[in-house]
Amino acid sequence: MKISVLAIGSEILDGRVLDTNSQFISTHLTNLGIGLHRTIVCDDIEEEIVSCLDFLAKDSTYIIVTGGLGPTSDDLTREAIATYTKCPLQFQKDSLDRLKKRFVERGRPFDPANEKQAFFPSSSKIIPNPVGTAEGFILSTGQLTIASFPGVPKEMHPMFTDHLLPLIKAAHDGSAPIARRSFRVFGVPEATIGRKIHSLNLPDTVVISYRATFPEIHIVLKSTDKSAVDAAWQASMESIGHDFIFTTDTVRNLPEEVLEELKKNNKTIAVAESCTGGMVGMHLTSIPGSSVAVVGGFITYSNQLKIDLLGVSAETLSRYGAVSSETACEMARGCLSKSGANFALSITGVAGPDGGNEEKPVGTFYIGLATESGVKAYKHFFPSDRASIRKYATYVALDTLRRSLRGISPYDYAQQKNFDIDRC
Amino acid sequence: MKISVLAIGSEILDGRVLDTNSQFISTHLTNLGIGLHRTIVCDDIEEEIVSCLDFLAKDSTYIIVTGGLGPTSDDLTREAIATYTKCPLQFQKDSLDRLKKRFVERGRPFDPANEKQAFFPSSSKIIPNPVGTAEGFILSTGQLTIASFPGVPKEMHPMFTDHLLPLIKAAHDGSAPIARRSFRVFGVPEATIGRKIHSLNLPDTVVISYRATFPEIHIVLKSTDKSAVDAAWQASMESIGHDFIFTTDTVRNLPEEVLEELKKNNKTIAVAESCTGGMVGMHLTSIPGSSVAVVGGFITYSNQLKIDLLGVSAETLSRYGAVSSETACEMARGCLSKSGANFALSITGVAGPDGGNEEKPVGTFYIGLATESGVKAYKHFFPSDRASIRKYATYVALDTLRRSLRGISPYDYAQQKNFDIDRC
Repeated sequence: MKISVLAIGSEILDGRVLDTNSQFISTHLTNLGIGLHRTIVCDDIEEEIVSCLDFLAKDSTYIIVTGGLGPTSDDLTREAIATYTKCPLQFQKDSLDRLKKRFVERGRPFDPANEKQAFFPSSSKIIPNPVGTAEGFILSTGQLTIASFPGVPKEMHPMFTDHLLPLIKAAHDGSAPIARRSFRVFGVPEATIGRKIHSLNLPDTVVISYRATFPEIHIVLKSTDKSAVDAAWQASMESIGHDFIFTTDTVRNLPEEVLEELKKNNKTIAVAESCTGGMVGMHLTSIPGSSVAVVGGFITYSNQLKIDLLGVSAETLSRYGAVSSETACEMARGCLSKSGANFALSITGVAGPDGGNEEKPVGTFYIGLATESGVKAYKHFFPSDRASIRKYATYVALDTLRRSLRGISPYDYAQQKNFDIDRC
Repeated sequence: MKISVLAIGSEILDGRVLDTNSQFISTHLTNLGIGLHRTIVCDDIEEEIVSCLDFLAKDSTYIIVTGGLGPTSDDLTREAIATYTKCPLQFQKDSLDRLKKRFVERGRPFDPANEKQAFFPSSSKIIPNPVGTAEGFILSTGQLTIASFPGVPKEMHPMFTDHLLPLIKAAHDGSAPIARRSFRVFGVPEATIGRKIHSLNLPDTVVISYRATFPEIHIVLKSTDKSAVDAAWQASMESIGHDFIFTTDTVRNLPEEVLEELKKNNKTIAVAESCTGGMVGMHLTSIPGSSVAVVGGFITYSNQLKIDLLGVSAETLSRYGAVSSETACEMARGCLSKSGANFALSITGVAGPDGGNEEKPVGTFYIGLATESGVKAYKHFFPSDRASIRKYATYVALDTLRRSLRGISPYDYAQQKNFDIDRC
């Protein structure tokens, strides 16, 4: 079974609208273990729609067409499908009656321009639209099924899930289910992950995909052979090293994983942020229910606030600088005592583009971690643009806490080795 | 000239990632007055890529391929283009040297898996990647030009705008120059903006586009007639109301506009964030040079920290609740005095999904603004999902400060009127 999407509309092609319908459809199909074969976006031109239908029909069993079912002159999807399938448009009185009733219910006069929306290719099954005026249709000819839905997401969604998805599900039950396994990594470059997994010579029946959602890397393994995918998954994780795999959950990101770990341990966290300016707090509190473990913290962007709010000593700042392990330690220590949390994370660094020097170039940052048993700080280096440095530093801070909570040594991602000296 | 996009990657087809590159490309082309012809998303399978290239090449003069240039085994774009164009892959020593240099500069060991990225189809022009390891290439064969860029948006963007766009621009001769004007709005629904501008009956020669970058709305007016676009721009801004237009700059967002205003007035800001957990601080400090005006602040997610760090009284919290104008005022007042800044913004609200009640449902939040002349707080309501509520509240806080700095009254966006009572 091969399923493709044809999204129609100049508003997508000229950049005004993002095609989110294809993502909606593919997410539902993926849940059934079906990969979307292909998607095409084309213009509201009849010959163009016919040409794309013809290309997709060469190897697709289902084509899901979105958009172009409206009442205006640039809506040509029904005409194009009628032409391509040689099923001429026919007037459907029931459909017009529903349309007119809808206008009455909403206290609006019926505009005759809408009459066009009551015409469908012959032999179509008509799909009512619970939300708008454009009804859809499903049409099978030979091995090919074409489903046509409006492009407005909130109209398309229920029509797809209630009417087409059950058909696909039923047709798919005959074929072998696809087993999926995944894991997510922080701190190992994508190339290294790819090389290590490649060198395992995993069986061809297992399809591996990599996705970099900076700075996380997500690995998904798929196969119709469940035991093969399980074995490949275990071997892949082994080759990369379990320390770097923050989750085997399919949706959880690193901040969510850290929060789960804190909750499991019944511990609380506070943050003291300089160069990230609130990003760690923002990520942690983006998670519903985070108030159980996140108490808050300090944004000490200026040196004066580091002194006033966290008790960093002026001497430390002038002697070692704001970007130093000494300052990171004092920030974390001050944050722990002022917040009363079980853990305090501090971040201070040079996010650039200015402010770097030879000793501490742009991309240098320190993470401090204070717990009841003491304070430590770790130097990191990640030269990049300002936004990436800040996001990376946020993740390093969270990963430092994850490692601490799980009893894993802190890691120097640049040098690719564990830290062997305490810096506070 | 017909330009198509081929986006490659199973992560797009299975719904994990949304293809935003095509929108980026089409927006740039639209600015030149060129419509994108077609986009296709296909899987990382060599034959599949070749088949889609073949289909697009039938009537495209440019094919822009994104994705599949990484170092892992599922990256097959270079191989497929070499096969399709019959230009075999060749090793490029300069490219490998740049790659190795990049690793050295970043203090990271070179992984041999990356060597793959130094192979390009013969006769290609290589496009350096200023941000990542995957270099791109542009290859012309007969009437067709194929450009191949990495799929990571921040890598693709500069490579496209600096190297391919000028070529397209040069080839796109004969057309009149296009005059552009733009403005950006916060606090008016997109539909209202659209209706107001529509009712102006602007001349057909002026093309208007709307882009919602939640919660900002960007309006662009274009025409080959410069005086027509100027008149339409003035009339459009007038119809919406200048209070809501935070900038007429083409790239500046609301946080950047607020920072500029603070710098112009030689003033500093501190924040006290509850439900946004650091998001206001994060947005302000994302801007290079923000340390001139941003001193930092407090993330007081728990009630205890509101008391301990900001001096909010326990009685206020128990009597009015953490989500109240009284608490917002005390947070802002405490933040002002503890930070020594000229302005203090506070945010406290119910971001959900839980925690709402009949009196204060999910989406209720208060913004406090403390200045040397006093403190005020304003109640707002924006029922939505957690992420949207937090982002919206962050923007309302920043817009409250923008209005104050510019002498514009604070505004109740839900009731669509100015606040007429002081709440502290």
